Amino acid sequence: MFRGLSAFPLTPTDEQGIDATAYAALFARLAAAGVDSIGALGSTGGYAYLTREQRAHAAKIAVEAADGVPVIVGIGALRTSHVRELAEDAQQAGASGVLLAPMTYQALTEDEVFGLYEDVTRDLSVPLCVYDNPGTTHVHFTDELHGRIAQLPNVGSIKIPGVPDDPREAELRVAGLRALIPDTVTIGVSGDWTAARGLNAGCDAWYSVIGGTFPLTALAVTRAARSGHAGPAVDLSEQLEPLWALFRRHGSLRVISAAASHLGLTGEPNLPLPLRGLDGTARQEVVAALDTLGLTS
Amino acid sequence: MFRGLSAFPLTPTDEQGIDATAYAALFARLAAAGVDSIGALGSTGGYAYLTREQRAHAAKIAVEAADGVPVIVGIGALRTSHVRELAEDAQQAGASGVLLAPMTYQALTEDEVFGLYEDVTRDLSVPLCVYDNPGTTHVHFTDELHGRIAQLPNVGSIKIPGVPDDPREAELRVAGLRALIPDTVTIGVSGDWTAARGLNAGCDAWYSVIGGTFPLTALAVTRAARSGHAGPAVDLSEQLEPLWALFRRHGSLRVISAAASHLGLTGEPNLPLPLRGLDGTARQEVVAALDTLGLTS
Repeated sequence: MFRGLSAFPLTPTDEQGIDATAYAALFARLAAAGVDSIGALGSTGGYAYLTREQRAHAAKIAVEAADGVPVIVGIGALRTSHVRELAEDAQQAGASGVLLAPMTYQALTEDEVFGLYEDVTRDLSVPLCVYDNPGTTHVHFTDELHGRIAQLPNVGSIKIPGVPDDPREAELRVAGLRALIPDTVTIGVSGDWTAARGLNAGCDAWYSVIGGTFPLTALAVTRAARSGHAGPAVDLSEQLEPLWALFRRHGSLRVISAAASHLGLTGEPNLPLPLRGLDGTARQEVVAALDTLGLTS
Repeated sequence: MFRGLSAFPLTPTDEQGIDATAYAALFARLAAAGVDSIGALGSTGGYAYLTREQRAHAAKIAVEAADGVPVIVGIGALRTSHVRELAEDAQQAGASGVLLAPMTYQALTEDEVFGLYEDVTRDLSVPLCVYDNPGTTHVHFTDELHGRIAQLPNVGSIKIPGVPDDPREAELRVAGLRALIPDTVTIGVSGDWTAARGLNAGCDAWYSVIGGTFPLTALAVTRAARSGHAGPAVDLSEQLEPLWALFRRHGSLRVISAAASHLGLTGEPNLPLPLRGLDGTARQEVVAALDTLGLTS
């Protein structure tokens, strides 16, 4: 399951709650496009801002609307006992896998991060993807820590941040991690603008923000790279540079939020306060980039 | 209320829940010592790890056990609507003030941080202390942002991180902020090892971790500084250096957790997973420091 394109859609949310209709339609759109898996309630899906009840409900909608495509559900929370409850809810909803970032308020020691994964993986009945996202968690995984966690039962994948620009350095980065983890654990790249290089460097999966809203575009890059066409994969990715530049400037979440509402896939606003959408100027830049790239549906 | 010594105790918590008896006893101890206010559910009080229901219950226990000493209740959460619910609960429990750190998962823009305070302060009936804690929130307040927020209705204080070591630089830091905020808004220092210098430099309050467990010690420093005895205040603080060194090395939370259980004020463990107490060696260092300083009750 943790291979190929894993698409991470928004969870359209405003102060009244989750827009269940729009949410289900996003999952149906991804399933129809043929993505390999769908990541519900990832960072793009705003898991950190929703209650346990909202997350359990969203997981159920996601699995139903995905129509057989495997759904990976984010179970991150600040407290271990809450993570375990969320894992139970995700499995009850029919998740094929779970995704866990070590959220922090107090900084965690390496042993505390390991302990979290140890306590959570023990009772799982579906595989877990370790979510390494220093930008939101402020946890800086060493490869040695990844190696320790990857030996735990039920660990199936590691979602790493972007790989280096240089292809050789990217290969070394992926190979270095691969040497420390079991063969059964896959490596998936995130940081969309580095994904083609990550796949070319040997990553098994792309955990993709853009794939959650523009699945065909992300599938084209993924299929090229995974079938050995390294050059075309990079070319396809580089064509998307206007969008990547906006991702780097404003964060992928706010750009995808503006794009999804521009396309009519969600209402506006679609992010929970205190998060606010882009201002008018930045929104125009997003629309211009989408027009340039023909990403208008 | 936001003046003098504000003492921040632990909320003794394990996997079974909050130890309400120990929690009430901590508040009674602080009230008996004569602290000026008590901060319930601050960072030391583990607010970020507790449910809304647990926090509402803890706030009620706190106000009752504080026996008339003003209680400031932490209302931080990742989502604005949840912060507003927590503010309502705190006021219902009888809080005299509330404390709000801008917790983050996605990084917030300055306008988003301002918007959070704008949305929360609008409906308050008690004053709010702005909690500037980059170590846990990863929000870096500029003085200009503090100035904007301090103009909002119901803002009564700003809890700043530690001040510079140099007394003149500390004065400039406090004066610089003071120039941008209304006269009605006080400034309180945190970062316990800088508190004497902060009070000497003009801070109105010390938001104190050590004061939550060793109130008489913290009161001695505060009373010296606030009555114009700058030298003795610094001397008293410097005597505590064995403890400050441990705070800097392990974080104040874990050190106070070990100290409180060593004194029998709480059981063990007293922190919620994934947070774990100090290891055996570090614990021995804490006990040795307490013995050296005569902090054994």
